[in-house]
Amino acid sequence: VAGVGTSRRELAPQTEAGGRFAELAAMHASVAAERAPGHDAQGSFPIQTIEEMRASGFLGGLIPSALGGVGVETVHDWAVGMNRLGRGDGSTGIAVNMHLGATFGMVRLRDAMVRTDNRDVVAFFDRLLERRVRDEIVCAPLTERGTTLNHPQLAATRLPDGRWSLSGRKVFGTLSPAADLFSVTAVVDEGGAKTTAIATIRQGTPGMAVLDNWDALGMRASGSNDIVFEECVVPANAVVLTHPWGTMPETVMVTVIAQVSGLLGVFLGIAEAARDEAYSLVTSRTKQPSGATLASHPGVQRHAARIEIDLAVCRSMLDRVTRLLDEYLAEHPAGQDDREAVTELFVEFQATKYMVNRNAIAVVDNAMTMTGGAGYLSSSVLARLYRDVRAGPFMQSYSPNEVVEFIGPTSLGLPPQGDL
Amino acid sequence: VAGVGTSRRELAPQTEAGGRFAELAAMHASVAAERAPGHDAQGSFPIQTIEEMRASGFLGGLIPSALGGVGVETVHDWAVGMNRLGRGDGSTGIAVNMHLGATFGMVRLRDAMVRTDNRDVVAFFDRLLERRVRDEIVCAPLTERGTTLNHPQLAATRLPDGRWSLSGRKVFGTLSPAADLFSVTAVVDEGGAKTTAIATIRQGTPGMAVLDNWDALGMRASGSNDIVFEECVVPANAVVLTHPWGTMPETVMVTVIAQVSGLLGVFLGIAEAARDEAYSLVTSRTKQPSGATLASHPGVQRHAARIEIDLAVCRSMLDRVTRLLDEYLAEHPAGQDDREAVTELFVEFQATKYMVNRNAIAVVDNAMTMTGGAGYLSSSVLARLYRDVRAGPFMQSYSPNEVVEFIGPTSLGLPPQGDL
Amino acid sequence: VAGVGTSRRELAPQTEAGGRFAELAAMHASVAAERAPGHDAQGSFPIQTIEEMRASGFLGGLIPSALGGVGVETVHDWAVGMNRLGRGDGSTGIAVNMHLGATFGMVRLRDAMVRTDNRDVVAFFDRLLERRVRDEIVCAPLTERGTTLNHPQLAATRLPDGRWSLSGRKVFGTLSPAADLFSVTAVVDEGGAKTTAIATIRQGTPGMAVLDNWDALGMRASGSNDIVFEECVVPANAVVLTHPWGTMPETVMVTVIAQVSGLLGVFLGIAEAARDEAYSLVTSRTKQPSGATLASHPGVQRHAARIEIDLAVCRSMLDRVTRLLDEYLAEHPAGQDDREAVTELFVEFQATKYMVNRNAIAVVDNAMTMTGGAGYLSSSVLARLYRDVRAGPFMQSYSPNEVVEFIGPTSLGLPPQGDL
Amino acid sequence: VAGVGTSRRELAPQTEAGGRFAELAAMHASVAAERAPGHDAQGSFPIQTIEEMRASGFLGGLIPSALGGVGVETVHDWAVGMNRLGRGDGSTGIAVNMHLGATFGMVRLRDAMVRTDNRDVVAFFDRLLERRVRDEIVCAPLTERGTTLNHPQLAATRLPDGRWSLSGRKVFGTLSPAADLFSVTAVVDEGGAKTTAIATIRQGTPGMAVLDNWDALGMRASGSNDIVFEECVVPANAVVLTHPWGTMPETVMVTVIAQVSGLLGVFLGIAEAARDEAYSLVTSRTKQPSGATLASHPGVQRHAARIEIDLAVCRSMLDRVTRLLDEYLAEHPAGQDDREAVTELFVEFQATKYMVNRNAIAVVDNAMTMTGGAGYLSSSVLARLYRDVRAGPFMQSYSPNEVVEFIGPTSLGLPPQGDL
Repeated sequence: VAGVGTSRRELAPQTEAGGRFAELAAMHASVAAERAPGHDAQGSFPIQTIEEMRASGFLGGLIPSALGGVGVETVHDWAVGMNRLGRGDGSTGIAVNMHLGATFGMVRLRDAMVRTDNRDVVAFFDRLLERRVRDEIVCAPLTERGTTLNHPQLAATRLPDGRWSLSGRKVFGTLSPAADLFSVTAVVDEGGAKTTAIATIRQGTPGMAVLDNWDALGMRASGSNDIVFEECVVPANAVVLTHPWGTMPETVMVTVIAQVSGLLGVFLGIAEAARDEAYSLVTSRTKQPSGATLASHPGVQRHAARIEIDLAVCRSMLDRVTRLLDEYLAEHPAGQDDREAVTELFVEFQATKYMVNRNAIAVVDNAMTMTGGAGYLSSSVLARLYRDVRAGPFMQSYSPNEVVEFIGPTSLGLPPQGDL
Repeated sequence: VAGVGTSRRELAPQTEAGGRFAELAAMHASVAAERAPGHDAQGSFPIQTIEEMRASGFLGGLIPSALGGVGVETVHDWAVGMNRLGRGDGSTGIAVNMHLGATFGMVRLRDAMVRTDNRDVVAFFDRLLERRVRDEIVCAPLTERGTTLNHPQLAATRLPDGRWSLSGRKVFGTLSPAADLFSVTAVVDEGGAKTTAIATIRQGTPGMAVLDNWDALGMRASGSNDIVFEECVVPANAVVLTHPWGTMPETVMVTVIAQVSGLLGVFLGIAEAARDEAYSLVTSRTKQPSGATLASHPGVQRHAARIEIDLAVCRSMLDRVTRLLDEYLAEHPAGQDDREAVTELFVEFQATKYMVNRNAIAVVDNAMTMTGGAGYLSSSVLARLYRDVRAGPFMQSYSPNEVVEFIGPTSLGLPPQGDL
Repeated sequence: VAGVGTSRRELAPQTEAGGRFAELAAMHASVAAERAPGHDAQGSFPIQTIEEMRASGFLGGLIPSALGGVGVETVHDWAVGMNRLGRGDGSTGIAVNMHLGATFGMVRLRDAMVRTDNRDVVAFFDRLLERRVRDEIVCAPLTERGTTLNHPQLAATRLPDGRWSLSGRKVFGTLSPAADLFSVTAVVDEGGAKTTAIATIRQGTPGMAVLDNWDALGMRASGSNDIVFEECVVPANAVVLTHPWGTMPETVMVTVIAQVSGLLGVFLGIAEAARDEAYSLVTSRTKQPSGATLASHPGVQRHAARIEIDLAVCRSMLDRVTRLLDEYLAEHPAGQDDREAVTELFVEFQATKYMVNRNAIAVVDNAMTMTGGAGYLSSSVLARLYRDVRAGPFMQSYSPNEVVEFIGPTSLGLPPQGDL
Repeated sequence: VAGVGTSRRELAPQTEAGGRFAELAAMHASVAAERAPGHDAQGSFPIQTIEEMRASGFLGGLIPSALGGVGVETVHDWAVGMNRLGRGDGSTGIAVNMHLGATFGMVRLRDAMVRTDNRDVVAFFDRLLERRVRDEIVCAPLTERGTTLNHPQLAATRLPDGRWSLSGRKVFGTLSPAADLFSVTAVVDEGGAKTTAIATIRQGTPGMAVLDNWDALGMRASGSNDIVFEECVVPANAVVLTHPWGTMPETVMVTVIAQVSGLLGVFLGIAEAARDEAYSLVTSRTKQPSGATLASHPGVQRHAARIEIDLAVCRSMLDRVTRLLDEYLAEHPAGQDDREAVTELFVEFQATKYMVNRNAIAVVDNAMTMTGGAGYLSSSVLARLYRDVRAGPFMQSYSPNEVVEFIGPTSLGLPPQGDL
């Protein structure tokens, strides 16, 4: 693209592993971009790209290199990689981020175990993680229709033989067409206070079905299908009770910040792709009677300025919140979280999510405006980006329906408004 | 919809004819709404609805009742009718508005002739107008790729026998699949200063082709195809030289305000439909753990407030600018325009267009947000409204690429920036 | 001011009486503008201007001409007059609007009595109204610290002899230095449900004191002092019980819309004055190296465009909501209010108040920006306008702290959030 | 302040020297805050605070500790220190930042000399810098009325004896009442192309006068007086020709980013102070009828959320742009600047300046809104913060009148619009 580039301004990996991850991401992005129009039109899942990521080791982005992964150790660099991937295709980006998110918490637990010198447990985690580089793709949808994240309705019922029976439905099961394992939140109600549990189900288990029903305005290639459980029986150790139902423990908050930062990287990438597409168009097309390029029109430049400002906000906020989280993680191994510090980060993160989602949409919108109509045609990549980028705010936690009611009272030392 | 309605707040027709027009519009809107999802999916043109409008007399909305029309005499009530139609289907709304716009200037000219007692000319116009109620649907696209509205490149060349040969291409030819006549701007370059002309071409004329190439993000049923002229020969009286090329005479400014006010009515209607859809959903769906309706969540209510405010802005501005134009028209028959007064109205109108387009988009966006994801699914009418409403700002004159550069300098007594 | 003026775009009176009122307002505005810098610097009240208004009959703006008033019969034209006054001085504008508001409800009651042919009561009101043209200036502050408008804490206690004792404090007693009468809301708590009452107190009554403590960022000449009541005894007929404490009856809602529309007229006037001041400066000052006027700079023009758009929003909304109220008033005499219709108007009005207050601030802000620093100096009228215009949102009902929480739920058929 | 604090979210020094600098700043801020109301009311300069800063060594913030300074080596930590100071008093903050900015370029030049092992020059700079810790306060105003920064009109004319005569006027001479030295840009026009020069004048030089004419809406204690030169004769070595008139060399761009980042730190500090003030008020005051704190009202919380988001944007952007500049400075010693890289940083910086200025204003505005009127009274610190914070956007480079017209075209590879 003509003009002042963004090389100093784009998000840059800070570590060597992050650099490798970003390079892999850029490579996969380039192929994903070519396939994107087709998958978008068909609403089909880019299974081939996911397989190529399995082959390249990209799926092990956060997994130590000793275990076959890329070894990214910072959330910052994770988000940078997702940013590169998002420039190619948003659907592919959010799909693979689902798997990466499912490995993050495990890596953090393993790291805590390493500190305690508990070799057996470390070895256990090592095996799990090794498989997640190439053998086991994980889909971990949290959302259900008609309830909040912290109040899953999917029921896990203990059978007399110790196994569990699962019934309920998750929605927005991004990556589901490629998943080998599913990891879902559930409620266990055994008479006393309800408990939230994590249930892990292998693809193909009787009683579980991945529907092929994802059909939305955008992110059409993300495979975000419903996943239905009807008396799906799983082994005793497939369900782990984690915390009181209706609460969000620190470790979940940390994971949300980390994983959704990856998503924000994707949405920033979509916005950057829209910018580049629009700049390329306006610097090459001319308009009569002056015959000057569209880029020379003051109104077009005005929208470019707005784009640059909005992107600068996105990059700065995502950069900063991931650095702050990385600092926190360096000080707090799993199990030693600090509620107040996590809450502060969570507030900062919610501000970041709100602004990045919003600005990414604004950037694509202004990019489309700059083109004067060309970007509204189905043949323009901008038309897809406009639909894809709109998915961002819906992603939990939180959506715009909750974010103000969380940040405001929390900052004032009061409980949030409404169900969370 | 539950809650405080909008009966006092919605735009209301001020005249009896306006009332009839709005009722017809509402009737057609109701049918158009049912057909909209199918036409949107297929990108097909709602020819049946247009035929029903021909039968009902709706196409003669602005034509005196003595000539078979509905007899709407104010731009205000024209826009109100379009508003009702837009609530049903935006594509149908902008399509039919194209025809109405093409009758507006003619009615205004006839009215001026009536004042001069020039019976022959009045009779001529009467015949033309009578045909436009049921016999002749007119498509009058102005836009060409790579030039401004005031600098058409479509060339009208005088042949030795007095006839004209037309070559060039119009884009965004909304309503083209149903049109019997095409009325396009052209440039006549006979050596001296170039002149802008209006060329009228009957459907089926050799050398003219309506492509079937409209495929866009939204307004997919509007038939906004390219119309190509290649040495298309038309009779001598089919081309009328109107004004110096590169200028916008007062009468064109007046027509733009009137016709685009109709379009703004449509976009307001889209926004109102999105509001009603979202309110209906959030007042009926509940969410755990409280089991309260979505509508009871503070964040959802916050978006409702924003919607109400944005709609109030749209309605107020459209109401006022059309009233101001109607006052102006009552004082200034065709041919007796006042440049300064028209320019003041044009500035006010551009402010209105900017805000109505922008707020209509914001309303649909907030309506989608309120639904928490449901509105993002293809099965939701909100997903279509989100794509349709985005077309508004592109419509001329002006787009967001020019509006600030027109209003600012004009208000300061200076020439606009950039090509207009 | 150079450039396209605002003659067609400014709010215009619709009635003859409105025209006279606007002319008087413009006359007083011109003098008030000259005195404004001095009163602002000193924080002194423009008593001389108020006396001149008493002499000119302007204080009887809404009072029938048969009773010595100007005879304005529409809220629309009331707001237009306030708009003209606000262009000269905001403090003077809000001060006199207090008195006008205090006559509005009385005129409405009288009109209702006229319909019922109740001549004695009409005569009673006539005498009251005649006095309010020239003899009795009324200050009717509603606000108290630490409670809402609907829950006054100022206590009216019935004495054994039937008289009343008042204790409490009103704040924001605009116009208090000039007032002959004070009319305040109070709570009567006689054991059962509390009742809201209106107490009328003559200036000089023992136990009542108008403090000289108004010292604020702006509106420094408005005399918005605290008014303190300490066992202030008033006659039996000086306290009228009106409605259950904690409620807002329709008639109060109507009065709020009317009176605050007058205030919005003032704030629009402030914004227009800022626009004119800035345009005058930028079209006359030049800047090196080009030597062109500031107005020729694209960035300055950009701010002008924003100003024009924001003003167009203000004018349109104020125009529309006052017309809607006037239509309502024409259909509903005092005592025959329609709760649902009033509530719809109240929602529309709150949207209007929010936008006019906000946009007026934005206009002054952008006007200051255009001047590139000159407007920040104390010697610039813009510096005062910037402080004055900020008062708008605080004025009840509602402030930005309540407006979203009122409009949102009300539109969804639910009760407002928070204390109102 | 109650609620979730900002300890993890506030900008934090990254270096040890930065930590000392921030501590000193906080100490001076605490005293400055107490003196601020008085200086604001009187428009007097806080000379005592500046003397205390001279005594504490704070004025040598950027000067190596070996030379008696604090030794801050990063622009990031400079801005953090200014942030702490701005929380106490904005006027004091921008005043002292003027001096710090005047030392920045000198330190950078010295560092470059150290690399070249040029001991004599290093020693020369060392002496200069040592004096600037405690002996010589420098005021370096760039702005003149009626021209841009890059086109100074203040004329430096060479006298026959080699000395120079200066004539012209600088405005916004912040810190001037305390300055020992003045360093101003001038134009040298000796027949060929004009050249920009830096002239250094000692306080008390005949022909130079610091007026006592600073009287503005806010920043009233900053001493931003006019400085007038009338045939003021200075020695030959007091004028140094630096670059072609009308251009902005890389080194100036770097200095602008650095110094104005310091200013942005001050404005962020003002915003943070407004937040704390408002939070303190709303968490302690209650409102009837519920008797709940203001903080418990949803509308108040809504404004708190907006404040948190806006602050997060400010912090993130200022954090990032200063880090990027520090990285650049580490790679590019004075004299080895890279035009493209600097331009990229300048674009990013302008986006940052625009957003920080704008959001700081919004934060103070929302803080005032939260208080429901209390913050509008002159007795509230918020009333001063509201006036002070408005100064930000006017500060060069750039103001909102130029920023869009710079960022837009530059990003598209085109020259800026308008005079710069």
